[in-house]
Amino acid sequence: MINLAIIGYGNVGRGVRKAIKNNPDMALKAIFSRRPDVVKKEISNIPVIKIEKGAPKSSVPIDVAILCSGSKEDVPVQGPLFARWYSTVDSFDTHADIPKYFHKMDEIAKEKGNVSIISAGWDPGIFSLERVLGDAFLPCSKGYTFWGPGVSQGHSDAARTVEGVIDARSYTHPIETTMKQIRDGKKPEFTSRQKHKRVVYVVAEEGADKEKIRKAITGMPNYFADYDTEVNFISSEQMTDEHNAYPHGGFVMTSGVTGERNKQIIEYRCQLASNPEFTGSVLVACARAAFRLKTAGHKGAYTMLDIPPALYSPHPGEKLRSKYT
Amino acid sequence: MINLAIIGYGNVGRGVRKAIKNNPDMALKAIFSRRPDVVKKEISNIPVIKIEKGAPKSSVPIDVAILCSGSKEDVPVQGPLFARWYSTVDSFDTHADIPKYFHKMDEIAKEKGNVSIISAGWDPGIFSLERVLGDAFLPCSKGYTFWGPGVSQGHSDAARTVEGVIDARSYTHPIETTMKQIRDGKKPEFTSRQKHKRVVYVVAEEGADKEKIRKAITGMPNYFADYDTEVNFISSEQMTDEHNAYPHGGFVMTSGVTGERNKQIIEYRCQLASNPEFTGSVLVACARAAFRLKTAGHKGAYTMLDIPPALYSPHPGEKLRSKYT
Repeated sequence: MINLAIIGYGNVGRGVRKAIKNNPDMALKAIFSRRPDVVKKEISNIPVIKIEKGAPKSSVPIDVAILCSGSKEDVPVQGPLFARWYSTVDSFDTHADIPKYFHKMDEIAKEKGNVSIISAGWDPGIFSLERVLGDAFLPCSKGYTFWGPGVSQGHSDAARTVEGVIDARSYTHPIETTMKQIRDGKKPEFTSRQKHKRVVYVVAEEGADKEKIRKAITGMPNYFADYDTEVNFISSEQMTDEHNAYPHGGFVMTSGVTGERNKQIIEYRCQLASNPEFTGSVLVACARAAFRLKTAGHKGAYTMLDIPPALYSPHPGEKLRSKYT
Repeated sequence: MINLAIIGYGNVGRGVRKAIKNNPDMALKAIFSRRPDVVKKEISNIPVIKIEKGAPKSSVPIDVAILCSGSKEDVPVQGPLFARWYSTVDSFDTHADIPKYFHKMDEIAKEKGNVSIISAGWDPGIFSLERVLGDAFLPCSKGYTFWGPGVSQGHSDAARTVEGVIDARSYTHPIETTMKQIRDGKKPEFTSRQKHKRVVYVVAEEGADKEKIRKAITGMPNYFADYDTEVNFISSEQMTDEHNAYPHGGFVMTSGVTGERNKQIIEYRCQLASNPEFTGSVLVACARAAFRLKTAGHKGAYTMLDIPPALYSPHPGEKLRSKYT
């Protein structure tokens, strides 16, 4: 039995809790939260512990702590904190800071004899894996990543900052005709606009100037200006009824040539009805790998690129070779 | 520099030779063949050595021997032979015999201090990997594998045994409407007929009874009887002009549910203009992994399930983390 703790109980934390139920070799032993009083209203059968710098370890035995809080503020602080006590898994996704974060976690985990798997999930995570495999199996190939269709949290937040907007949900859509070009063996460079479009649903204040809101959103630099962006105004009832889920997904495509002119195209696709639940499910499989790596005497930081895939699976090697190979 | 030998110089062997040219850290140092005289007509710059049981090792230094001969007769004999001298990579694909072959190779490689990667390529190989990842990330999910569109060597050979047939090429096609059902979140059991159809091109002897040939092919048990099979008669010129390539490919699909009812669907697809060249390219990346594993002090048999993906890549970990994660 692998004993787990969840650190941070939001959407991903809930996804991890649900995923643990599908894995009979795992048990949830504690939840760490910055607001334990809120979490305790939902969770009564296991300890809910307040996260504090220098807080005591849980008195229940924990093998792996799964960090489910935000990459911007929380994980960079909580990762190093929890790696002192337990093996850890996180989905740190600030791409530019991954090398620095890796080194920090590697240093602490090595010192304390733990295993820390960082930047796991689907992107970064599985998509990173598929990008590396594509490049290794088809050297000199070109790789493309598309996201969606799905909800972009960051873009929804950005649209919500516009004056007159009560609520907003931004969807990212990959552009099918562009993906078809890659599947047909073409390998151009694409602009942001050629790869993705954005569709935003907005609940506006009564009497707000909708045209002004539309222009403020579609012209927003970094977030919407580089894309074809469609803005739709809806009621707050529609927002609650029709936009209450977190679907997402994406594509990793690798297009290469072998020999003189043989086109070889690889495509990996996720189509996810719930982004946080799928992320949670991947993190739990990573917790199994972290536990096994530590048990085998390893220590330090890992990404999903460094882990033998069999370690994610509940099945023994013999079964994997006879049933899945 | 990683020094390689190719064992068996057919279509896959040629694919490996071409792939090595795309990998600047690799050098081809020798070819072993059962018919060196034939190979020497094509290869003059490196030694071509006759494969004999108990034959001497090559006098040139070789790190990894890539076995490119047939899984039925050759690899089961040549694998154990070459694993005594070198680390090896093979694409052994007799699925039912993989566990037994693994144990044999593991024993020899461990005894001799070598690393033997078995059953690599795309299926078994990458597809095995994707099946295991799908099952680990989505427990209780259902996995489906589809092959094609592409040439099936075994089915082409079977059609050639029919009386009156001079030449035949059998293509496997996955059935799009069935794959669409999976993408739509349905998870039924499918029959062979629902998953694939077969299209056979036949050059018949002059005056042969075409209807009789058609019936003999479409009714052939194990090969064609369980599928909707279309038989087309063509001229030998058409066969040479239009069916001289080895395209193949396939799909690994995993359909699962997280939480109460959130459908999560993963799909991996290969679309290959040349099956043997892509297989060769994967085997060369595996040779890099075998070399690195041995250099790090490991020994024994591995499948692609047991290998950290970063080991396939020519790039160092730091670059993988900054560029691909």
